[in-house]
Amino acid sequence: MPTALASLVNHQVRLAARPQGMVKPSDWQFTEEPVAEPAEGGVLVKVLALSLDPAMRGWMNEGKSYIPPVGLGEVMRAGGIGRVLVSRNPAFKDGDTVTGGPGVQEYWSIPADQVKRSGVAKIDLRLGTVNQWLNVLGMPGMTGYFGLMDIGQPKPGETVVVSGAAGAVGQTVGQVAKIKGCRVVGIAGGPAKCAWVVKELGFDACIDYKAGDVKAGLKEHCPKGVDIYFDNVGGDILDAVLARINRKARIIICGAISQYNNEGAVVGPKNYLSLLVNRARMEGMVVFDYAERYPQAIAELAGYLKDGRMKSKEDVVDGGVAAFPAALPKLFSGENFGKLVLKVADA
Amino acid sequence: MPTALASLVNHQVRLAARPQGMVKPSDWQFTEEPVAEPAEGGVLVKVLALSLDPAMRGWMNEGKSYIPPVGLGEVMRAGGIGRVLVSRNPAFKDGDTVTGGPGVQEYWSIPADQVKRSGVAKIDLRLGTVNQWLNVLGMPGMTGYFGLMDIGQPKPGETVVVSGAAGAVGQTVGQVAKIKGCRVVGIAGGPAKCAWVVKELGFDACIDYKAGDVKAGLKEHCPKGVDIYFDNVGGDILDAVLARINRKARIIICGAISQYNNEGAVVGPKNYLSLLVNRARMEGMVVFDYAERYPQAIAELAGYLKDGRMKSKEDVVDGGVAAFPAALPKLFSGENFGKLVLKVADA
Repeated sequence: MPTALASLVNHQVRLAARPQGMVKPSDWQFTEEPVAEPAEGGVLVKVLALSLDPAMRGWMNEGKSYIPPVGLGEVMRAGGIGRVLVSRNPAFKDGDTVTGGPGVQEYWSIPADQVKRSGVAKIDLRLGTVNQWLNVLGMPGMTGYFGLMDIGQPKPGETVVVSGAAGAVGQTVGQVAKIKGCRVVGIAGGPAKCAWVVKELGFDACIDYKAGDVKAGLKEHCPKGVDIYFDNVGGDILDAVLARINRKARIIICGAISQYNNEGAVVGPKNYLSLLVNRARMEGMVVFDYAERYPQAIAELAGYLKDGRMKSKEDVVDGGVAAFPAALPKLFSGENFGKLVLKVADA
Repeated sequence: MPTALASLVNHQVRLAARPQGMVKPSDWQFTEEPVAEPAEGGVLVKVLALSLDPAMRGWMNEGKSYIPPVGLGEVMRAGGIGRVLVSRNPAFKDGDTVTGGPGVQEYWSIPADQVKRSGVAKIDLRLGTVNQWLNVLGMPGMTGYFGLMDIGQPKPGETVVVSGAAGAVGQTVGQVAKIKGCRVVGIAGGPAKCAWVVKELGFDACIDYKAGDVKAGLKEHCPKGVDIYFDNVGGDILDAVLARINRKARIIICGAISQYNNEGAVVGPKNYLSLLVNRARMEGMVVFDYAERYPQAIAELAGYLKDGRMKSKEDVVDGGVAAFPAALPKLFSGENFGKLVLKVADA
């Protein structure tokens, strides 16, 4: 046994209440538990970093969705990267770096009968850093890659617009679309993000939605209309793009961050009849459907990171799980710049 | 020359004003013109019947759509069936029955240089009556057939929901879906229409949206959820169906009759994020895109009419072109029962 497990304490963040509108501190509860030696077949993982994602807001709501909601009193669901502290399962060795869904806690104890179901899997840090494995090589990267490639089906010369352009999914979408020969226009909040996606990531243009008129920006930067729109935000921006789509355009509905904290009903896209006029398509995606093909996408994206054709940017919050309640709302205010990562322990 | 052309008068209905909200009598202007002998290469058609369609409302609006708007002062655009009175074009003989877009007038004079472009084409009355050629064998039938088959891609055992079920497009969609082995649930207004689509057309069920709760009806009649929704209406009904769709569902956006006469903005589907959760698709269609394949669809549908597997119902308004302004609004109030046809002359 490599560590004095008995001396370790697992700090956790649990869902205390279902939020109305914006998430608040009182929606969370802090708990601690002792860390126990895993039984035969089990694995104990020390969490290094957690992924903070817009989807988390949906998991906090009651009701049917693509996965069940987090139960009240349960450790908040979260993807993350960790190091195997003690493995009593032949699939893992002590010291392996793994990806999975540890939840918002410092130690992830996986019983034998849940190792397979949990989706815990070894990762290779030669392909990317811990943070990159939560970004371009992780769920956001997979989401951007398969949404763009499978639903968007980009052709060279087409115009691709992506909202949340500086975010985790957006940076993958835009950079892959550039590599595939498309014109890429981002939509992001603030001049710093816009400058970054153009100068650092090589987007053709970026529209600052906080500075004003998205419609005018689309008109200026998409002179040939929009063939693919990767939507992370919904709301008025989705409507503005709908008004500019081309015939046979594809809109990938990946999220609607503008709507997640609404207390009232979601506002639907009033310009949806543009789909009719333009024989266009709006299609939803959930990344888990592509799990079997992750390795192939990871290999391709890691290649782009290696040869410099792709960059990745993470916004790393320090402070461990205690910092989670204050960090999550940054996603909804657009305060984060790059993939939001919560650092839990040193790698 | 078979007729004393000089004695004929062509009564016409022209667009006098762009309507705000519901179409009103003052939006129209009646005119008359003499009927002239066609020049070399031209064709003169006597109009027998006109197709009255929800799409007409859109053609009356200014602005970009899938076809240009009808100009102020122009004869209102309309599809129809006619008989060739005088042909000076080798493609047609006097007495041929033809389909095309004569507009709301009694005589359609097609100059030589517009015969091809106009899309005028001979039809075979052995395949169906004049009214059926405006219904199942006409644009509505083509719309229903290609929307269902190409975008919907029905598989036996799937559940298909169609709104405007007793209307021109709806009756084709539902009956073809039954023939293809699907469970079919209609949505229509009033007990008579609902009873008819179930008893006469063989739908499995029909929800009377005027009687109340569409959501409850969908829950009752679509116990396995909805795989395909053919949307002719938009609005609350689209939202109710979105809440019941299955994984990988396909929604065909064919129209949004509930929204056409809105003075304010169209109301978007607030449940559109169900597309995300269910990895579902919403896709627009315009029937003209399938023009090359009409003959194949007509042959298939005429076969179903012949062998009794399909029925067609038309709501024929008498009174000629003068009755047009009063007849068109029936589409938007849901007063029509079956494909709305304006009879212009005896066949």
